[in-house]
Amino acid sequence: MELGSSNTHVADVTISAKGYVAGVAGDAISRYMLLINSEHFSSPLDWNKGVAKASGHFGGLVVSVLSNNETLDLETDESYTLDIPVNGTGSLTAKTSYGVVIRNTPIHIEDAPFFPHRGLQVDTSRNYFPVSVLKRTLDAMSYNKMSVLHWHIVDAQSWPVESKTFPELQKNGAYSAKETYSYADVKDLIQYAKNRGIRIIPEFDVPGHTYIVGEAYPELMSCMDVQPNWDKYAAEPPSGQLNIAKPETIEFTNKLVTEYTGLFVDNVFHLGGDEVNRNCWKEDPDVIKYLAAHPGEDVESLLSGWYSKVHDHLESLNRTGYSWEETLFHSTYTPPKDTIIQTWIDEQSISKTVAKGYRSVASPAAYYYLDCGHGAWLSNWVNGNSWCDPFKTWMKMYSFDPLANITDPEEQKRVLGGEAVLWAEQTDEVVLDGRLWPRAAAVAETTWSGKRDANGRVRTTEEVASRLHEQRFRMVGRGIAAEPMQPVWCVRNPGHCNVPGA
Amino acid sequence: MELGSSNTHVADVTISAKGYVAGVAGDAISRYMLLINSEHFSSPLDWNKGVAKASGHFGGLVVSVLSNNETLDLETDESYTLDIPVNGTGSLTAKTSYGVVIRNTPIHIEDAPFFPHRGLQVDTSRNYFPVSVLKRTLDAMSYNKMSVLHWHIVDAQSWPVESKTFPELQKNGAYSAKETYSYADVKDLIQYAKNRGIRIIPEFDVPGHTYIVGEAYPELMSCMDVQPNWDKYAAEPPSGQLNIAKPETIEFTNKLVTEYTGLFVDNVFHLGGDEVNRNCWKEDPDVIKYLAAHPGEDVESLLSGWYSKVHDHLESLNRTGYSWEETLFHSTYTPPKDTIIQTWIDEQSISKTVAKGYRSVASPAAYYYLDCGHGAWLSNWVNGNSWCDPFKTWMKMYSFDPLANITDPEEQKRVLGGEAVLWAEQTDEVVLDGRLWPRAAAVAETTWSGKRDANGRVRTTEEVASRLHEQRFRMVGRGIAAEPMQPVWCVRNPGHCNVPGA
Repeated sequence: MELGSSNTHVADVTISAKGYVAGVAGDAISRYMLLINSEHFSSPLDWNKGVAKASGHFGGLVVSVLSNNETLDLETDESYTLDIPVNGTGSLTAKTSYGVVIRNTPIHIEDAPFFPHRGLQVDTSRNYFPVSVLKRTLDAMSYNKMSVLHWHIVDAQSWPVESKTFPELQKNGAYSAKETYSYADVKDLIQYAKNRGIRIIPEFDVPGHTYIVGEAYPELMSCMDVQPNWDKYAAEPPSGQLNIAKPETIEFTNKLVTEYTGLFVDNVFHLGGDEVNRNCWKEDPDVIKYLAAHPGEDVESLLSGWYSKVHDHLESLNRTGYSWEETLFHSTYTPPKDTIIQTWIDEQSISKTVAKGYRSVASPAAYYYLDCGHGAWLSNWVNGNSWCDPFKTWMKMYSFDPLANITDPEEQKRVLGGEAVLWAEQTDEVVLDGRLWPRAAAVAETTWSGKRDANGRVRTTEEVASRLHEQRFRMVGRGIAAEPMQPVWCVRNPGHCNVPGA
Repeated sequence: MELGSSNTHVADVTISAKGYVAGVAGDAISRYMLLINSEHFSSPLDWNKGVAKASGHFGGLVVSVLSNNETLDLETDESYTLDIPVNGTGSLTAKTSYGVVIRNTPIHIEDAPFFPHRGLQVDTSRNYFPVSVLKRTLDAMSYNKMSVLHWHIVDAQSWPVESKTFPELQKNGAYSAKETYSYADVKDLIQYAKNRGIRIIPEFDVPGHTYIVGEAYPELMSCMDVQPNWDKYAAEPPSGQLNIAKPETIEFTNKLVTEYTGLFVDNVFHLGGDEVNRNCWKEDPDVIKYLAAHPGEDVESLLSGWYSKVHDHLESLNRTGYSWEETLFHSTYTPPKDTIIQTWIDEQSISKTVAKGYRSVASPAAYYYLDCGHGAWLSNWVNGNSWCDPFKTWMKMYSFDPLANITDPEEQKRVLGGEAVLWAEQTDEVVLDGRLWPRAAAVAETTWSGKRDANGRVRTTEEVASRLHEQRFRMVGRGIAAEPMQPVWCVRNPGHCNVPGA
């Protein structure tokens, strides 16, 4: 059979509305009416069993939204209560529109997320993803109740997004004129995401990972594409960093921040700050000259001053900074206290971050990096492995607890959630879905529901497996090319595909 | 842009024929006329460059086939000569139809394969693949000049193929009534493959990996689905092996071999023989009883006798046996001398096989296994990794030489080639293409061209990368969802994405 091709629904489901149901909730109601009544999905458990029969008559669903506030941020109330009687009309009640965006299953459910930040990072610089593919990803995120798309939009390899301030960035930096995101594309994606209860947080990664800026503005750069020994200057080719000895790079960055905080309306803005390489600057003629003329300064103080001027500018625009953990732990700079720190290098960084009084989003590479385990990608590296080997299975992802080793309730509150991360060196639109799903759904569940069930017991992957299979086949039925987790035999025989003694 | 969506061809290409061009060659000519004139592909190198211009006028291609022999086996002559002048008509001359099946690029080419057996193994038991997906895989194989589809058609988890002798096998063993291969499907696939110069060799893996037989005939089995300690009895769940103490299992197997050597016309037939587990039999009541009644016999002698009766039967049907290396190296049985041994456990097994006088096909897990590196798939194995970690990159696959450490010319001749292998525990139709391609193309090239160029120099992956990128994007343009190897930046900047000093 074509996976998920048989149709199990018996009669059309109607969804009607009470309260504030224009805008986001109205869009969700129309969308799910269409989806529920047209989707083709049958559980792999049922392929041999025929169509399931209803025990009563379902008279449709009435949706009630209690507030017309459509602001989408860390404070948004996503809770809901769902009641489905044996016969008659069900009810779905939510404080805001974002509580009704997500479809769920019957009976009585009172639900609210454990963490507000349930994210997925995509990288559109190493390889380009069309708007349609990002929309499909937002659809899949909504099916998994995720709340944040972290859009790592530019990096060293390409600059796909339009800039009205510096049009040369896209002109010289996009892979082609078609592999781009216009202002209209970005606005469309933000609205599309908002209608699904998802915020889009953009990342403009500075001052490292910026080679592509030099294709338009070489005068702003240090250590451009050093070959063959790029590894002394960058984590991967091509090398290139904004030249922190030049005030023009602060001006350039701040103009971009001004422009893009206008385009990307979210109140959080990611400034990157990962994998900054000191050699790149230590050998730069302008940096050498500057340091010679300024005794007492060094690369660290230069960088700290550079960060300060950029982060201060972001604060002046009433935006909250979001940065990779190096900005906090591997520089002498002290970010503003409201900065959100995305930890990735070390699982312990989360507890260290909140102990310092900062808020943290957990993206530990050893658990949450979706691209790991795919081998080396440098053309001549015959025996090279993935830098973050091995592959992170959905069980590994599910096992991570962002609150591990954090006991202080105030510190716990500063853990905002987690983000599954995909870097796209070995991924493009052709294989994206399988790289993301269903593994990101494991992160979605643990960040929505927390690690423990209502009785305080830690959920095991063994018990999760069946519903994640179901969710995977459901996603496939909805056009998301999620990868299979096991042979169908295992799907059909829960508990028969475990390792003894684990 | 949609990958490979721009169309670079200028005018329709005509292909005409001389000699024996009915049947296979005629089909190939029609197919390639259509493909060449309708495909949408542009090299990623050219996305910003516009359409390439022709320097002369190409007057079409004349294809000549010198023999009407359409037999497809290890002896088939696949050589061809291609000439494309600057202006006028090109010529493609081949000894048999199978020399013209594969499209190639211009100028003067005299070409013939280094190895006759250039294979890909797919596994349709762990998860099912529709006929359409297998056809797409055969298309992709033909684009890469591969000559053998090794169809691992049944295994422990499901029995998708029709049997007229034992209809209960499919009835009880297929995942669903739709997830099956009828006789008509198999015949259709064999013809489809033949038209592309590809043989289909089926594998019916006995006596291990046969749990699913017990869903129809439990009386034939030992150690059926032992839980939770399946690991004592099998390499993966569910456990279950044909009971070698029962003559009925020989009769059963030989009837199947008779039936399927009729359906699968190839003169080679794979009998499996991998990962046979002795504990399964040592604890079986029938085996215990039999051995008690037959002093001097043990499990090894029982197994050896069992193999003997099955392999002798296959020989009596004028078929060549094909077996995993355990049959030769990890049992006391001595297979017939014409048996082809597929090595997978140890790279040294190839030289050992040919030193023993047997022919060998190389499938070393450490190089050629396409499923490795995808993590554990047992539901509760949070910290488990892939049994054959790490992931095998295309560079790793390319680096393998089936002739390594074999110096004797007669022994070299007994190395028939190589097979890339995909086991499908974590793969189904949704993600198949990306698991196979472009990595299997690396094996295709080394088995077609050998490890060395015309000057005797070993080709490096660095120099191969550009043409493999091109081939990957070409496959995507033809509807094969092959995975990307690198960021497009690396595709565009050959030599800039290498590891220093490798």
